[in-house]
Amino acid sequence: MSKITVLGTGIVGDTIGSKLIELGHSVAMGSRTINNEKALAFVAKHNGKAIEGTFADAAAYGEIIFNCTKGSGSIDALKMAGDNNLKDKIIVDISNPLDFSKGMPPFLTISNTNSLGEEIQKAFPTAKVVKTLNTMNCGLMVHPDSLNNGDHDTFICGNDANAKDKVIEILKSIGWSDKHIIDLGDITAARGTEMYLALWVRVLGSINTGNFNIKIVR
Amino acid sequence: MSKITVLGTGIVGDTIGSKLIELGHSVAMGSRTINNEKALAFVAKHNGKAIEGTFADAAAYGEIIFNCTKGSGSIDALKMAGDNNLKDKIIVDISNPLDFSKGMPPFLTISNTNSLGEEIQKAFPTAKVVKTLNTMNCGLMVHPDSLNNGDHDTFICGNDANAKDKVIEILKSIGWSDKHIIDLGDITAARGTEMYLALWVRVLGSINTGNFNIKIVR
Repeated sequence: MSKITVLGTGIVGDTIGSKLIELGHSVAMGSRTINNEKALAFVAKHNGKAIEGTFADAAAYGEIIFNCTKGSGSIDALKMAGDNNLKDKIIVDISNPLDFSKGMPPFLTISNTNSLGEEIQKAFPTAKVVKTLNTMNCGLMVHPDSLNNGDHDTFICGNDANAKDKVIEILKSIGWSDKHIIDLGDITAARGTEMYLALWVRVLGSINTGNFNIKIVR
Repeated sequence: MSKITVLGTGIVGDTIGSKLIELGHSVAMGSRTINNEKALAFVAKHNGKAIEGTFADAAAYGEIIFNCTKGSGSIDALKMAGDNNLKDKIIVDISNPLDFSKGMPPFLTISNTNSLGEEIQKAFPTAKVVKTLNTMNCGLMVHPDSLNNGDHDTFICGNDANAKDKVIEILKSIGWSDKHIIDLGDITAARGTEMYLALWVRVLGSINTGNFNIKIVR
């Protein structure tokens, strides 16, 4: 079992962090400030298995870092976490660079010839950024079996093969089967999974539920 | 049965045009110049059911226009087809604004806050642009049943509800069932289906076949 950092106190951080604890890991939840109300609630409900603190406190604790912050604030949050606390660690990036400031559906702040995954990798070159799970809502991320007996797919990409293997192990422990984890290659493939969000938000608007995912039918 | 224009002599135009003829329509294939070699071959193999000519010749003929040109040249091709020949007609846009000039995978020339579907609609305001089928290879467009008994999805969007209904009828005649045609709303949703191509090309690279499509699992 690992010591894992979850950056972000929103529903994504809470959901991912809770699942990791259920699997036996211990979790440090990081936030902009110490004693964040939601982080304290997270610690309280996971009696003894979770701690909380600043982004830097939490990042110093974990061996693996889950970036569950909003994409628009991810680079800032990771900078607050600190180079030294991220050095050589796996950053599992499940965020999307969505901008809701012009209303729904959102657009992307980075896309096409760049991606947030790549920007994070460039900003923290010794870290091993692995992008995954960003193509669905957080309930499905941690309960793939809840939809169509798990017969739908997630993607993974990143520059470091060992880091991807470690993240795949975590995905499998969550309930993702090997055949539903599609390796798209290096971190530039984050362009693909992030740009898919432009379709995701419109499918959401069409079918009126976020409880869906795609399956690659071949 | 309808008189249909297919703009473009590549594999997409040939495949779509051939299917439409098989369904009983008559087709005019348009190209930059008259007597294009591929257009002549298309006419020859569809004895009496197809004609060919310039983009303008072909567009004048059809009641419905299928844009099967490369996305990078679509606006130019449609301009050559001519405002008058497109006036009030349905343009079924199955193209994608992909730029391969920097190698594989391609990037998009328009995306995020705009799309090729929207640009075509703006350039030809009386036409009724309907974007569909652009999320898969052309073999699957016309043979949905060839993959997993047709259990995968296509998307449709456009500003004119009647035009979408007519295109849905054509899709159904091709073999797409109602439940696998997902209406995403107005033509701005083309941003979603075009940006998905960034994921499509990377899945292609990962699974080494273009013979796949997505299913929205809900």
